Amino acid sequence: MIDTRFYELIEGGLSVSDLCARLDLAAPEGSLAETRIFEPAPLVTSQAGSLAFLESRKHSPTLETAKASACFVTDALADAVAERNIVPLICKAPKYQLARATDILVKAAKRPAEIAQDSHIHPSTIIGPGVVIGSNVSIGPNSVITNAIIGDDTHIGACTVIGGTGFGVVTGPDGAIMSVPHVGRVLIGRNVRIGSNTCIDRGQLGDTVIGDDCQIDNLVQIAHNCVLERGCALAGRVGISGSCHIGEGVLMGGSAGLADHITVGPGARLAAFAGVMHDVPAGETWSGIPAMPIRDHMRIVAKAKRDIRK
Amino acid sequence: MIDTRFYELIEGGLSVSDLCARLDLAAPEGSLAETRIFEPAPLVTSQAGSLAFLESRKHSPTLETAKASACFVTDALADAVAERNIVPLICKAPKYQLARATDILVKAAKRPAEIAQDSHIHPSTIIGPGVVIGSNVSIGPNSVITNAIIGDDTHIGACTVIGGTGFGVVTGPDGAIMSVPHVGRVLIGRNVRIGSNTCIDRGQLGDTVIGDDCQIDNLVQIAHNCVLERGCALAGRVGISGSCHIGEGVLMGGSAGLADHITVGPGARLAAFAGVMHDVPAGETWSGIPAMPIRDHMRIVAKAKRDIRK
Amino acid sequence: MIDTRFYELIEGGLSVSDLCARLDLAAPEGSLAETRIFEPAPLVTSQAGSLAFLESRKHSPTLETAKASACFVTDALADAVAERNIVPLICKAPKYQLARATDILVKAAKRPAEIAQDSHIHPSTIIGPGVVIGSNVSIGPNSVITNAIIGDDTHIGACTVIGGTGFGVVTGPDGAIMSVPHVGRVLIGRNVRIGSNTCIDRGQLGDTVIGDDCQIDNLVQIAHNCVLERGCALAGRVGISGSCHIGEGVLMGGSAGLADHITVGPGARLAAFAGVMHDVPAGETWSGIPAMPIRDHMRIVAKAKRDIRK
Repeated sequence: MIDTRFYELIEGGLSVSDLCARLDLAAPEGSLAETRIFEPAPLVTSQAGSLAFLESRKHSPTLETAKASACFVTDALADAVAERNIVPLICKAPKYQLARATDILVKAAKRPAEIAQDSHIHPSTIIGPGVVIGSNVSIGPNSVITNAIIGDDTHIGACTVIGGTGFGVVTGPDGAIMSVPHVGRVLIGRNVRIGSNTCIDRGQLGDTVIGDDCQIDNLVQIAHNCVLERGCALAGRVGISGSCHIGEGVLMGGSAGLADHITVGPGARLAAFAGVMHDVPAGETWSGIPAMPIRDHMRIVAKAKRDIRK
Repeated sequence: MIDTRFYELIEGGLSVSDLCARLDLAAPEGSLAETRIFEPAPLVTSQAGSLAFLESRKHSPTLETAKASACFVTDALADAVAERNIVPLICKAPKYQLARATDILVKAAKRPAEIAQDSHIHPSTIIGPGVVIGSNVSIGPNSVITNAIIGDDTHIGACTVIGGTGFGVVTGPDGAIMSVPHVGRVLIGRNVRIGSNTCIDRGQLGDTVIGDDCQIDNLVQIAHNCVLERGCALAGRVGISGSCHIGEGVLMGGSAGLADHITVGPGARLAAFAGVMHDVPAGETWSGIPAMPIRDHMRIVAKAKRDIRK
Repeated sequence: MIDTRFYELIEGGLSVSDLCARLDLAAPEGSLAETRIFEPAPLVTSQAGSLAFLESRKHSPTLETAKASACFVTDALADAVAERNIVPLICKAPKYQLARATDILVKAAKRPAEIAQDSHIHPSTIIGPGVVIGSNVSIGPNSVITNAIIGDDTHIGACTVIGGTGFGVVTGPDGAIMSVPHVGRVLIGRNVRIGSNTCIDRGQLGDTVIGDDCQIDNLVQIAHNCVLERGCALAGRVGISGSCHIGEGVLMGGSAGLADHITVGPGARLAAFAGVMHDVPAGETWSGIPAMPIRDHMRIVAKAKRDIRK
């Protein structure tokens, strides 16, 4: 759901025929063309009024929970969409068309921020429209907070950027690229500590979430749609790519990095400089690039050192 | 010693009985309860009036130079503390209790900064209370300088944060975690050059020190209580964890990183991407993750390449 | 050529005799001492009025296109310079003397910036003198833009620093070091997207160039005199050292880094955490530290894992 604290939707929505006309796509025939859509959504959590996309057979299972009113889809997958009573909008580059439609459907809103009176925003920090800041929060100087909701007792350093647009491009049918619009939020829990010169991007569709009691050091990058459960600790220069899920109490050493869509189980530990390409099971300690269980990594290093002494 | 340019202590100090009452700990018996303490300190450099902690037998040797008036200590080590005529304050989590006591004993002061007239602070840079800035210094726009003393002829870039609180948590007896309070300083020497978007955290108890003639590039992280001797050069994206000691003239390549409490000897060189887990002897060149002498690392890489061609 | 939008040169230039006097160097004899120089330049692109340097025989071939009026040079290479009708200024540390001469010849200018009316500079962002910003550009809050020319439709995040001085030192004959003055620019093309907390340094002599359609994420470091051709995509925490040349459409994964003077061919891909020490051919995918073709790297990792299971 698009949060109307931060974004404005078109009053009354848009018919798919109007939308297709604006995107220069063929509209569906008959009364289907009058279907009204209101907001973009991921297919898996889509509701009545949602507009989604389906591009790859691999993601067809997300149709099971989908309730979208319309869906950009490739020709090959159109029947599967129609069977779910979702209007298929057939095109060559569904993800690209949803990005274009998002730019049409969603505009930034300009509502006042809400900042608890006992919280302290230091000089030259910019708080964007609609931001909500809880009680006993401090935000250091020269930071930038947009599209975010911040819980009580949370402390954020200086020159830190929360809620910026995520990084990502989509390619159109003619090879044109466009930046993916980001119309989600950053949700930060209670008693979180975030350092300086750190970046936490907002979600694309949906949210980037930092759980209660997380501790995040300086110069850390957390990309769009990541979820950190409660009590994680991230040392300096850590980088987490988009859509990762980090379980409760995970510890990450300095400069450790994750590829996108990685799951790290609760209580796992990632050593400094770990470069994680695969999911990490709960409670395990991984290190190395590419990361692996630390015992394997240490054995590989020890053997390599022995071998050059032979 | 807490620097009263930046922090205020309680006038007349606090008796250990009052302190223990506020922390909900049992006070020592008899006249010992009237012992007055004034400021937190590391045990090893503690003076009359200091309050310190001792948690592990490994650190017992620091008692030899300790002159603290009182010390949080586990039951098992209490006698060793008492033998040094230091009042033992017995508890389960001494480091945690010192963190709590620091929050009681030390408050931020609000004294004016002192900036030499020929120095140039660019727009929107924030200079915190008590900061001292020498002659012919320039500090780029949108930077933040707190709890720091900066020598002559030093140049600092934009969006750089100096003197922020360090990263660290302590765990209480009930598993509660709290951020470690940082009541130290950053001392920056003469003729230092620091880039943009760099972070140098202040010391916890004591100082983070950047020696004369150091050159520090962009996006560098230097954690609390690190000491860089004269003439070090750190390339972009370097990260140094807490309490490292870097000898004179050390060179660090881009993205190199150090674990905490590492010593790097004078004149050593760390290659780009070196991940240093062990002390580096003077004059040596190390590389790799984990870092080792570069000759060993290069031999390992060469052998691995040969082996896959067999 | 020094861009007089950003820098002022001495009206009428300076005679080499005056220059040598100010640098405490022996001037050339006779009428050569009256040769006038106007601006520093790299030897290879030097023009009439330029002052350059030549320190190593390896760079002697750059004399072939050189048209400088004078050149700092070591005794051993002075004849080669004179043969090209360039006045040799003999000294022990030519590069160091050019750095000192640059400080004498070039001063920052204070011309107004030019910002297209439909572009949006967010609050507390600093735009330096002479900067040119095209149409439909947005620059997020708390950023700093100096010595830069920015094309249409380009979007830059928050707390990003563009046009800062590069990192580099030169050593004088007595072991004294000085920071290399940077009197170049940053040229950013059209439809570029740059994230937050990113640094792009200006050129030393000459330009740092970001081509059209490049996508650059957060916390990225791009050093002086790098050239990115059109359509490159750099993920978070990438670092590119000085004077690299990145071909069209290159993709770099998170935290990848390049040594200086590296060439990456068009269409190449660098995996996350790649540490590139050698030129990368067009179209290849490299990974590892030091980076190598990804197939070799994956085979090395697979073999190492097999070997510890034996």
